[in-house]
Amino acid sequence: MTSLSPTVLVLDADPPPRLGSLTGRARIVHTDEAHLAERLPAADVLLVWDFTSHAVREAWPGDGPRPRWVHTASAGVDHLMCPELAASDTVVTNARGIFEQPVAEYVAALVLAVAKDLPRTLAHQREHTWVHRETRRVAGTHACVVGSGPIGRAIVRALKALEVRTALVGRVPRTGIHGPDDLDRLISRADWVIAAAPLTERTYRMFDTHRFGVMQPSAFFVNVGRGGLVDEEALVRALERRWIAGAALDVFAAEPLPGDSPLWELPGLIVSPHMSGDTFGWRDRLGAQFVELYERWAAGRPLPNVVDKTRGYVPGR
Amino acid sequence: MTSLSPTVLVLDADPPPRLGSLTGRARIVHTDEAHLAERLPAADVLLVWDFTSHAVREAWPGDGPRPRWVHTASAGVDHLMCPELAASDTVVTNARGIFEQPVAEYVAALVLAVAKDLPRTLAHQREHTWVHRETRRVAGTHACVVGSGPIGRAIVRALKALEVRTALVGRVPRTGIHGPDDLDRLISRADWVIAAAPLTERTYRMFDTHRFGVMQPSAFFVNVGRGGLVDEEALVRALERRWIAGAALDVFAAEPLPGDSPLWELPGLIVSPHMSGDTFGWRDRLGAQFVELYERWAAGRPLPNVVDKTRGYVPGR
Repeated sequence: MTSLSPTVLVLDADPPPRLGSLTGRARIVHTDEAHLAERLPAADVLLVWDFTSHAVREAWPGDGPRPRWVHTASAGVDHLMCPELAASDTVVTNARGIFEQPVAEYVAALVLAVAKDLPRTLAHQREHTWVHRETRRVAGTHACVVGSGPIGRAIVRALKALEVRTALVGRVPRTGIHGPDDLDRLISRADWVIAAAPLTERTYRMFDTHRFGVMQPSAFFVNVGRGGLVDEEALVRALERRWIAGAALDVFAAEPLPGDSPLWELPGLIVSPHMSGDTFGWRDRLGAQFVELYERWAAGRPLPNVVDKTRGYVPGR
Repeated sequence: MTSLSPTVLVLDADPPPRLGSLTGRARIVHTDEAHLAERLPAADVLLVWDFTSHAVREAWPGDGPRPRWVHTASAGVDHLMCPELAASDTVVTNARGIFEQPVAEYVAALVLAVAKDLPRTLAHQREHTWVHRETRRVAGTHACVVGSGPIGRAIVRALKALEVRTALVGRVPRTGIHGPDDLDRLISRADWVIAAAPLTERTYRMFDTHRFGVMQPSAFFVNVGRGGLVDEEALVRALERRWIAGAALDVFAAEPLPGDSPLWELPGLIVSPHMSGDTFGWRDRLGAQFVELYERWAAGRPLPNVVDKTRGYVPGR
């Protein structure tokens, strides 16, 4: 019986929870990056649990025997997409549904904390100094959210609930969503510019010297998408020259951010360790989601969350 | 003409904005605390602009000549109420309408920042250390808001917008508002306990050893009302003994908080300098509100925001 079970190859550092429920229905094989290439050809399914790894790109077997389905325990698929995978008939799915609300809350937390000057309050507390300040009202301010997928839309909902006026920018204009042609105009009048787009060839370093240049001196920039969306050197210059008031980065070109990076001490910049979506229980939810998708796949039913491999994300409504 | 204008006595440290528009319609007289008692009998109106001052209590002329109307540029009236003022026919009004949304946003900022562990993120940033953590989802958590006036109700609206489940506690149970009998039960199951009540004899030090004792070890306490609502020594012990997870105080028994107060360095406590309601333009809004009320008063029309001097706050809907 078990010899007929499909082989699920799991690329992980820490083992995923919940897969025990597949015992007898799947043959689970764990691998590290070093052994991925030799094990991929025999796998029916690849679960990319370690979504920080870029090993799939190098290990993908091209036209040879290969998994029919790849699932990544992440919203973004930039770490695994490569031309050979895109050209193949392998289905790629992502973790849509897990990260939307946590990331939206995280962005709301940053917007409110910055508006209320909380980092400075904590600094004054360390000095035992009572420094009354006036702070900003969030209601009525303007946000431009870049990335119209489920995470971007959840961010819009959270900010709207706080009475922030929001504009959403996606790859293609449609009802309620602006296209790229509107981007410069929208970010030039935004108090909050939120990057939540997938990392693709089109979005690579879209936040560059030009984009920071058109933002207002009072603008605050947040990146909860992928580090590659931002030209980090351009951001450093924009903050040093006070082109914008501040920024918060949860994602970086290189993660973990090296200890000697100038970003750690850049005035006006909040650095966090790629955690915006990771609320208690997230690993359990990711494990349970894979089990649910596996059961559909094994039953021959269509999978949800299927990535458009050409575009590099799950196309939405 | 001007000699017939009513006299408005202004107790201030910094002069209020916007009063210039009353030129010719009111005789504005400024006073400091030291000269308040001698000037009160000749005043028709007292504007308590310096709402940190307790001087009105001592200076109130009892049965002698006195202002017919006292307005305070604050939500709370605890700093000016005294038995003689309560017993008099003088009308007292407050700044209802100015602070509600700012305070509500401030509470939302604290709740989200704590849920997302932002203070620790900033501390790790100072050390250049990348420490991924799991954080809390705010949606679905429980808040108990104590104080059912417009500020408490605005806090409930802001938290509900973030999908927090809220309970509101007031002096008297009514539709949608719990009475004091429910307080212990509600705070014992709350993730967030928010103090936003007026300071009265009934609410003085209502957050004491007993109340912190029934809160859960994961609970976070926020005080944006008045320092007198909290037994600060009991809070110190509760935090030291980990009866609760943390707290944020924006108001204190003594303000400014003395530099040698143990509160500055209490683990788990966020100290801010009584600023939750003070968003840019608040002084202008307070000045404009007084002008508007003065115009009504001078025209003999009924005043809004009239304080129930026995209860110590503006009774609500």
